[in-house]
Amino acid sequence: MPLIVQKFGGTSVGSIDRIRSAAARALATQRAGNDVVVIVSAMAGETNRLLALAGEISPLPDAREVDSLASTGEQVSAALMALAIQAQGGKARSLLGHQLKILTDSAFSKARIKAIDAQRLHDTLGQGTIAVVAGFQGVDDAGNITTLGRGGSDTSAVAVAAAVGAACEIYTDVDGVYTTDPNICPTAKKIERISYEEMLELASLGAKVLQIRSVEVAMKYGVPVHVRSSFSDAPGTWVIGEEQSLEKVTVTGVALDRNEARVMLVGVADRPGIVAQTFGALARENISVDMIIQSPSVHAIQPGSDEGSIRTTDVTFTVTKADLPRAQHIMESLTAAVGAREVRYDEDIVKVSIVGLGMRSHAGVAARMFELLAAERINIEAISTSEIKISCLLATKYAELAVRALHDGFGLGANT
Amino acid sequence: MPLIVQKFGGTSVGSIDRIRSAAARALATQRAGNDVVVIVSAMAGETNRLLALAGEISPLPDAREVDSLASTGEQVSAALMALAIQAQGGKARSLLGHQLKILTDSAFSKARIKAIDAQRLHDTLGQGTIAVVAGFQGVDDAGNITTLGRGGSDTSAVAVAAAVGAACEIYTDVDGVYTTDPNICPTAKKIERISYEEMLELASLGAKVLQIRSVEVAMKYGVPVHVRSSFSDAPGTWVIGEEQSLEKVTVTGVALDRNEARVMLVGVADRPGIVAQTFGALARENISVDMIIQSPSVHAIQPGSDEGSIRTTDVTFTVTKADLPRAQHIMESLTAAVGAREVRYDEDIVKVSIVGLGMRSHAGVAARMFELLAAERINIEAISTSEIKISCLLATKYAELAVRALHDGFGLGANT
Repeated sequence: MPLIVQKFGGTSVGSIDRIRSAAARALATQRAGNDVVVIVSAMAGETNRLLALAGEISPLPDAREVDSLASTGEQVSAALMALAIQAQGGKARSLLGHQLKILTDSAFSKARIKAIDAQRLHDTLGQGTIAVVAGFQGVDDAGNITTLGRGGSDTSAVAVAAAVGAACEIYTDVDGVYTTDPNICPTAKKIERISYEEMLELASLGAKVLQIRSVEVAMKYGVPVHVRSSFSDAPGTWVIGEEQSLEKVTVTGVALDRNEARVMLVGVADRPGIVAQTFGALARENISVDMIIQSPSVHAIQPGSDEGSIRTTDVTFTVTKADLPRAQHIMESLTAAVGAREVRYDEDIVKVSIVGLGMRSHAGVAARMFELLAAERINIEAISTSEIKISCLLATKYAELAVRALHDGFGLGANT
Repeated sequence: MPLIVQKFGGTSVGSIDRIRSAAARALATQRAGNDVVVIVSAMAGETNRLLALAGEISPLPDAREVDSLASTGEQVSAALMALAIQAQGGKARSLLGHQLKILTDSAFSKARIKAIDAQRLHDTLGQGTIAVVAGFQGVDDAGNITTLGRGGSDTSAVAVAAAVGAACEIYTDVDGVYTTDPNICPTAKKIERISYEEMLELASLGAKVLQIRSVEVAMKYGVPVHVRSSFSDAPGTWVIGEEQSLEKVTVTGVALDRNEARVMLVGVADRPGIVAQTFGALARENISVDMIIQSPSVHAIQPGSDEGSIRTTDVTFTVTKADLPRAQHIMESLTAAVGAREVRYDEDIVKVSIVGLGMRSHAGVAARMFELLAAERINIEAISTSEIKISCLLATKYAELAVRALHDGFGLGANT
């Protein structure tokens, strides 16, 4: 019998009524001749409520206890979903991380799945029962409860689908992945099919439909993922392997990330090892750096200064706004050591990116992007590229204008 | 190192501030030179909130899922308690039913503990860590989460204390066990020491300080239990073995139970098997019967009735008010079969009981009880006795008067 994994996110189980609707959908899928595994998130708001309790007690609560605390949100949803399926005449059984044996490493709050006991799942399904799996949670070798990080239920769902060789439906409060944010660009349209690689770039660039790690797992095991709305029956977006992706368009989507901040080291002595020293210090503090640009200093040496004889350079990089205070702290202790004349911080920036598999084979995509921005008189502060994406750092005030210009300029609009 | 088990009930962990206070108490106990195991209930109101969610979905929700749902309340408390101990500079680790291996049978919602992994507990304590155990919950052989029934955290605490050979402190919102309800009788006083047997009779008679099963477990394994207030340092009541109980008073306490209802079968044919038929039908429906009185019918046979030739009897018994609707349903289908002329129901009654080990050796306690009630012109509707208690059924209006008359008449008052 075909097996389908259905994951319902926090808004899709946000009330008893919504849980009933999700249960009805799972039962309809079963009646259509499928075995069904349901993965649930915590009811919307519940994880935040639990974390706030921990936060009241301690600013830096122990991660093991926080995981045990936070995992109760999905435990509650799983039991309620099983009860809702039963109340509609079906058979259902909830399975927690330690019951299904979703074995993870011991990295509390960001654990990685090592193995899933597919046999236990098959045993449950073999009795005509819908297995309801608590998402987000696992268990380590010592029996400690772990969690997979924010949005971890997506990863649970894809990993379970991989373990049993099923397709995975992700039910959420949007009806698919869009070419860009429809709130910014009214011509944005739903993407029918997108490759894992493109989805990864879009996810990491701010299109928060799927947790990035779930896409990595889907790609690794070739799990077809269908992102769709829990409030309609319309098909959503299929996230699939490149070879199955029919639409070989140049640019698939435009992403906007408002979450970065820029750090500029001005007038750094241009000696070997200076850059390594800076980024080594950041890495030790677990601060991820995104874009890095190094250029000869454009700042004139002041007349009469001793520094006239030393060549200097400017180093610019971006970190997340959340990491900026810690980055500032590190930079202040480093400024003297690296010999920077000045450090500047700028939170008034955004990153706009275009993503598409077609870029590999189409020349001139970057040039076209810069043209489209220039036509709107938008200044580009920094650029970074990969095989299938190009990102530009811009002043925040240009964010929406740039997204619309690129989206329609690359012909992604519904009516173009 | 001496080991102390401390259990904190729902009101004692009812807010973050109260959790902090309980954590401080556990740490003070540890600093005084003890190993400490803390057992926690769910935060006050939480279990009801969770059960209400299940009730919204189904009037008779599946017990396995309800247990998985309800057990999250204690899981949350355990994590928060561990965090609170850590925040005050201590070491702590939460242990859930499946982590400590509190092995139970599979009777969901009323599971019984079969074994506890004391080694796991000792391993945790051996590192100077306070073990925080989630009360109320266990795990069966198949890894299903079970719960021990209302007030089950008391049983968890006593069972853990038994497993490691420790004394057990039960912190609650009253400061001990009283000779009777102080709200009814202002002269009620705190009992310093009470035997397991007496506590069992008081617990089952409505003095809801300790879950009855926890007292059974304490008696079976000889665990000394200290019931005391989480809001003061004053000693509470020790529940201990009979041989350690110093106060050999005749009557230890007076209990009032407002929870019973009376069923009277009037004019039942006095044939063998009639009574067995009635109580067999109730037992099959899992309805517990408390007092049973059979007496020759006092109702005159109506003149000219055919029944004049048949001897009849009246049968009176009590069930809980909650069971009364089901009992009525059974009685209606049985009335014809048992040949009763009439069935009467009465919810306007209470049961007042006196309890005391001394009754065994003191004659005349029952007679004194009836005298005291008679002196207040209180009519006794029914009587039942055991080795260490005597219960009388009375009209509800006499409840408080009877309690005060017996309490002071047997010299239990603070100033008598």
